[in-house]
Amino acid sequence: MRFLAFAILIASSVLFAADDNIVGFNKSSSDNQRALETQMDASINAEEMTEWLRRMSAEPHHVGSLASKEVAEFIAELFESWGYETEIVSYEILLPVPKTREIELVAPTNFVASLREETLAEDPSTAVRETLLQPYNAFSIDGEVEAELVFVNYGMPEDYEILERYGIDVTGKIAIAKYGRSWRGIKPKLAGEKGAIGTIIYSDPADDGYAAGDVYPKGPFKNDSGVQRGSVMDMPTYPGDVLTPGRGATERTRRLKKEDASTITKIPVLPISYRDALPLLSAMGGEVVPQEWRGALPITYHLGPGPAKVRLKAEFDWNMVTAYNVIARLTGSDYPDEWVIRGNHHDGWNHGASDPLSGQVAMLAEAKAVAELAKAGHPPLRTIIYGAWDAEEPGLIGSTEWAEDHADELKAHAVAYLNTDGSARGFLGIGGSHVLERYLNQIAEDVKDPRADISLKERSRAYQVVNGDAKEREEAKDRRDLRISPLGSGSDYTPFLQHLGIASVNLGFGGEASDGSYHTLYDTYEHFTKFKDPGLIYGATLAKVTGRATLRLANAPRLPFEFKGLADNVALYVKEIEELADGMREKTGMENRLIQDGTYAIAMNPYKTFGPPIAKAPVPHFNFAPLKNALGRLQESADAFDEAAANNDETSAAVNKLLYTSERLLTRDAGLDGRPWYKHHIYAPGFYTGYGVKTIPGVREAIEQREYDKVGTQIDIAADVLNDMADRINSLAEML
Amino acid sequence: MRFLAFAILIASSVLFAADDNIVGFNKSSSDNQRALETQMDASINAEEMTEWLRRMSAEPHHVGSLASKEVAEFIAELFESWGYETEIVSYEILLPVPKTREIELVAPTNFVASLREETLAEDPSTAVRETLLQPYNAFSIDGEVEAELVFVNYGMPEDYEILERYGIDVTGKIAIAKYGRSWRGIKPKLAGEKGAIGTIIYSDPADDGYAAGDVYPKGPFKNDSGVQRGSVMDMPTYPGDVLTPGRGATERTRRLKKEDASTITKIPVLPISYRDALPLLSAMGGEVVPQEWRGALPITYHLGPGPAKVRLKAEFDWNMVTAYNVIARLTGSDYPDEWVIRGNHHDGWNHGASDPLSGQVAMLAEAKAVAELAKAGHPPLRTIIYGAWDAEEPGLIGSTEWAEDHADELKAHAVAYLNTDGSARGFLGIGGSHVLERYLNQIAEDVKDPRADISLKERSRAYQVVNGDAKEREEAKDRRDLRISPLGSGSDYTPFLQHLGIASVNLGFGGEASDGSYHTLYDTYEHFTKFKDPGLIYGATLAKVTGRATLRLANAPRLPFEFKGLADNVALYVKEIEELADGMREKTGMENRLIQDGTYAIAMNPYKTFGPPIAKAPVPHFNFAPLKNALGRLQESADAFDEAAANNDETSAAVNKLLYTSERLLTRDAGLDGRPWYKHHIYAPGFYTGYGVKTIPGVREAIEQREYDKVGTQIDIAADVLNDMADRINSLAEML
Repeated sequence: MRFLAFAILIASSVLFAADDNIVGFNKSSSDNQRALETQMDASINAEEMTEWLRRMSAEPHHVGSLASKEVAEFIAELFESWGYETEIVSYEILLPVPKTREIELVAPTNFVASLREETLAEDPSTAVRETLLQPYNAFSIDGEVEAELVFVNYGMPEDYEILERYGIDVTGKIAIAKYGRSWRGIKPKLAGEKGAIGTIIYSDPADDGYAAGDVYPKGPFKNDSGVQRGSVMDMPTYPGDVLTPGRGATERTRRLKKEDASTITKIPVLPISYRDALPLLSAMGGEVVPQEWRGALPITYHLGPGPAKVRLKAEFDWNMVTAYNVIARLTGSDYPDEWVIRGNHHDGWNHGASDPLSGQVAMLAEAKAVAELAKAGHPPLRTIIYGAWDAEEPGLIGSTEWAEDHADELKAHAVAYLNTDGSARGFLGIGGSHVLERYLNQIAEDVKDPRADISLKERSRAYQVVNGDAKEREEAKDRRDLRISPLGSGSDYTPFLQHLGIASVNLGFGGEASDGSYHTLYDTYEHFTKFKDPGLIYGATLAKVTGRATLRLANAPRLPFEFKGLADNVALYVKEIEELADGMREKTGMENRLIQDGTYAIAMNPYKTFGPPIAKAPVPHFNFAPLKNALGRLQESADAFDEAAANNDETSAAVNKLLYTSERLLTRDAGLDGRPWYKHHIYAPGFYTGYGVKTIPGVREAIEQREYDKVGTQIDIAADVLNDMADRINSLAEML
Repeated sequence: MRFLAFAILIASSVLFAADDNIVGFNKSSSDNQRALETQMDASINAEEMTEWLRRMSAEPHHVGSLASKEVAEFIAELFESWGYETEIVSYEILLPVPKTREIELVAPTNFVASLREETLAEDPSTAVRETLLQPYNAFSIDGEVEAELVFVNYGMPEDYEILERYGIDVTGKIAIAKYGRSWRGIKPKLAGEKGAIGTIIYSDPADDGYAAGDVYPKGPFKNDSGVQRGSVMDMPTYPGDVLTPGRGATERTRRLKKEDASTITKIPVLPISYRDALPLLSAMGGEVVPQEWRGALPITYHLGPGPAKVRLKAEFDWNMVTAYNVIARLTGSDYPDEWVIRGNHHDGWNHGASDPLSGQVAMLAEAKAVAELAKAGHPPLRTIIYGAWDAEEPGLIGSTEWAEDHADELKAHAVAYLNTDGSARGFLGIGGSHVLERYLNQIAEDVKDPRADISLKERSRAYQVVNGDAKEREEAKDRRDLRISPLGSGSDYTPFLQHLGIASVNLGFGGEASDGSYHTLYDTYEHFTKFKDPGLIYGATLAKVTGRATLRLANAPRLPFEFKGLADNVALYVKEIEELADGMREKTGMENRLIQDGTYAIAMNPYKTFGPPIAKAPVPHFNFAPLKNALGRLQESADAFDEAAANNDETSAAVNKLLYTSERLLTRDAGLDGRPWYKHHIYAPGFYTGYGVKTIPGVREAIEQREYDKVGTQIDIAADVLNDMADRINSLAEML
């Protein structure tokens, strides 16, 4: 997450004092709202949160487990006890769990991978064995393969370009890839596309182990038996239940046959620890890997293929299991049909203390405080719906099924979706729809860092001033708000934002607690409270942040949407895309010339197999005019709205409806090219990065993937989307 | 070494065809010279070179050993047999050799370092034990110390700034530093300045071991017992015999007392292998090192201090030994008083196959071919003096003593000094005085790469086009010559160039053979011929290059000096220094503001000890005008000379004398501030980098070291030097 920040704090504090009216509120309603928030803060109790955390993380509680159902029931009981209309809404989903997991080095020596995480005397939680969900990658296909290994670095598209230059083809081989850089599901997807017949993913200690810091239990990092579990479902195509894309996985809905579920991998894949990876990598030969590819194991890394030959067997029980979402509602006193939705999942791969319970307990603390305000005579004006989602880990399934199941209602009523997930300590990370940039900045101005006597915003700003590059520092001089990050994927906001077009936000603390527990046996209460947020002091602060986020949306006379932040960020994306095309054109042209005139061949080391790159089609110039014209209109309309809004605090249900449905205009029913589930044309997870966001994805990915004939159409669609938004904003400006 | 290169080879080949007249020659003498060179090439025999290499590397032959004397005698016999007037010129020098070497971890556990390199069955040379010079750092003081360890990364000034931010002081501690980044002597020098009482230097496998590639004997890289020996004499103060700075170490010369020799370290230091380093580093505690500091051992690196506590004992026999330089002379037929000096050392730390014998055999092959030409009726017009230096390894001693001993004659007669040292395969590296840039480029145009059917220059150019950054590529479009590197230190050119002001050159191949044998037991014939230059095909090519370099200087009617290359490179250095000052001023100002207004403090992680930097004095603006005015005059004079030279191939002894003594004008008798031995004001080794060059060192180092009150004086000196050179060039232009 990258913030922008001001060069001189003192100046910035003077320029943009935190005592402005809250966006959407006038002076008097702002004062009332801030008083309410102070009252709310008093109800947030870190000790209580710690106790909830301890209780819910006591047992492994992955979707389908008895413990997970009990966690859902515990959450439901809490909500109910606080006065929420609470129900457990369940869906029937396909979930593979491991039956056979075998990785064996069969040549040139023999070694059988343990695939086992060790119990630690220092952490009683890790003594659990019976209900432990063993390390695996959910939605790997079943299979048994035997082949030579090829080391594919992080398994990204650019890695295969390098392998090609070494003359190495993964066809018929098993790809061994490091965790990191991309979402893990990309690794088997791309390996399969390139012809590999199996994939092994391991955590290299360079990225996640002793090279990063002391390992658990001495420090927080991954020890040599730790394995990152995780889904490898092709989520950039669609998330959620693999059998019911676009539909809620209710008991009687129409389902695909498993063979037709395109998001299950095409080749088997298993994750391993670096302890298990060491003998495999040590047995490899071939050229030494490029310097940037090497990890931190005490060996020389080689590309292969072979002579290391591996047998990989992965078989799963493909169960239909029930996912239990807890849905708790507090009906709004004034605008019951306008819904603020707030969610955090509750399922973990095992104990899930950090992921997701650290966020879950912040949501619970917030919900309790909101309920107490209601009981004290300050009910929210709008309806608040809390969702504690199940089955996020295997593929955002609980939230996706609920969002799909209630799509029409949500499109009509949802004001915004506010998400949290695992959270630690450090700086407030803010991602979200840019129509909410101002509103989110005000919240960060109003909440203090629990360690420093300064607002969260000023602390993030200080971080950026100290650590940002010259450009970031320069921009910060002129920009009032910290730039919030566009959302890709990786948590439950995806169905709301990218499928339904509901303005969404993701909040959490990070940057000062390192993480080796992610998706391992070691994501325990002990680990979390020792290393990630002792005393849950940042957790309690998160509840104050999200409590404000929820209540300001719920209580604002006029919804706190504004459009200058959107226009400014879209302008940045358009510029980035133009620079992307220019950079690719220049680089491709230069490389092609050097390939053609033999310069590359002359420069290569004749003692190595690494050769010149393959020539690529020249990158044409594109007509960006439609996009830039639309951007111009968006900027003008945003200015008009801003001026109108500043001079006028009148509002109406009609204005609010047009405000909160504005994000819908950034979607198209047909979705993105090749992945119709994703409707949003400004924010999407990358097709070949996974979690990483691609802004204006239709245009950006057509260029990145060198599908030049598609660019013009995608520019037109993006321009249409922005023009529709500009029309809407102009209408709103006229109504004020 | 960084070359500049042209974007399109075809174009460049057309623009700058290699059939120009050789600089200093007219059409007819160029043709004759090129014919001679072709004849010379036929005499160069890689098999004979290989046999010399095998013979000279058969035994460890460090200075003072019997084998070293035998190598000197062998070389002398060869020269004599070819008809050179040959003598062995000896000097009596102080040389410490190890008596006691002990490193022991005494807390929290016990471990005794082996300090021993293993014999390998695959390499018979490594079976030698009796005459092996054990791993040590020459010119460490004697001492026994016991203290906690502090990890100081590479032990550079910026590393201590980081340690200071962690609140770590090395006073009274033992610093453990990685080899690399700086010349090794900087590490104990700086550690001592900071208060450490001992230094351990080790080769981290990240830089020089399994992480770089397969280790010996499987591959060329350093195995876990290999230790880099090397001098830690404070060579940036003065090289050569520590007792006789500025004077030849003849038998009866005046000597310093050992206690007054400022170039011996102030604290004891020993080098170790990464196998011996592992238990020491594993036992350390304290904060985890910054990510950029970590190495490739399979541990978490910590800064300390302690709890690892080490006892280090280093005692040496401080012997007076004889260094044997072989001096072979072929008197010039026409200009016997103009001397071309060509050298390469012959002493190795042990077998020294790569360092220095790979270069030595190229010099011998060249010398034999030159002698054969002479016998065939083509003696050199000028006198050629070959120097096979002893005692380079402990501190450039043989060459320095000879240069000091013959300082007056050399200043009067030496046309230039041409150096080689260890050489491998790949690209021709060219360093040298920029008055010789054009001449060196022409040689690289005239010799073909032995693997590719293209000139050495075009191959280097191709490399730079493919690997250079945009700026380098851009510049290459307009520049005829590959930019040659300025010389710092690290081989025998230093006394000639930087003490006497003799234009100097250093040549060698590299970039396609990796090196883990450097200064270890494993620098053997077997290692060299397997990994570094099988068949000595690049070695033979080096002889062709240096043969041309020697003969063109010897035979050119007008010496091949020109000044546009000098002016252009000096312009670059002036620009760099201005940018250095601007960058430091901006960064210091920004940091000071952020320290003062508390931004740094806010941005720091409260869970870590790493704090804000310490405020520094603001960087003032400097008056660079005198330097830039002088540069302008230099550029104009260079243009005038260029024009005059192009229209006129007349020459005279007077012109030649003014040409070859021009480099002397870049020196000042008083030398550099604080190190009077170094007289050259354009090129010097860095006071805190060692080998790394500092151009216009007086000005640059005053700024880098934040001694702002010295900058003005240094600018005036540098301007004087350039003005003197411009005057000389103008005189020369008028004479033509």
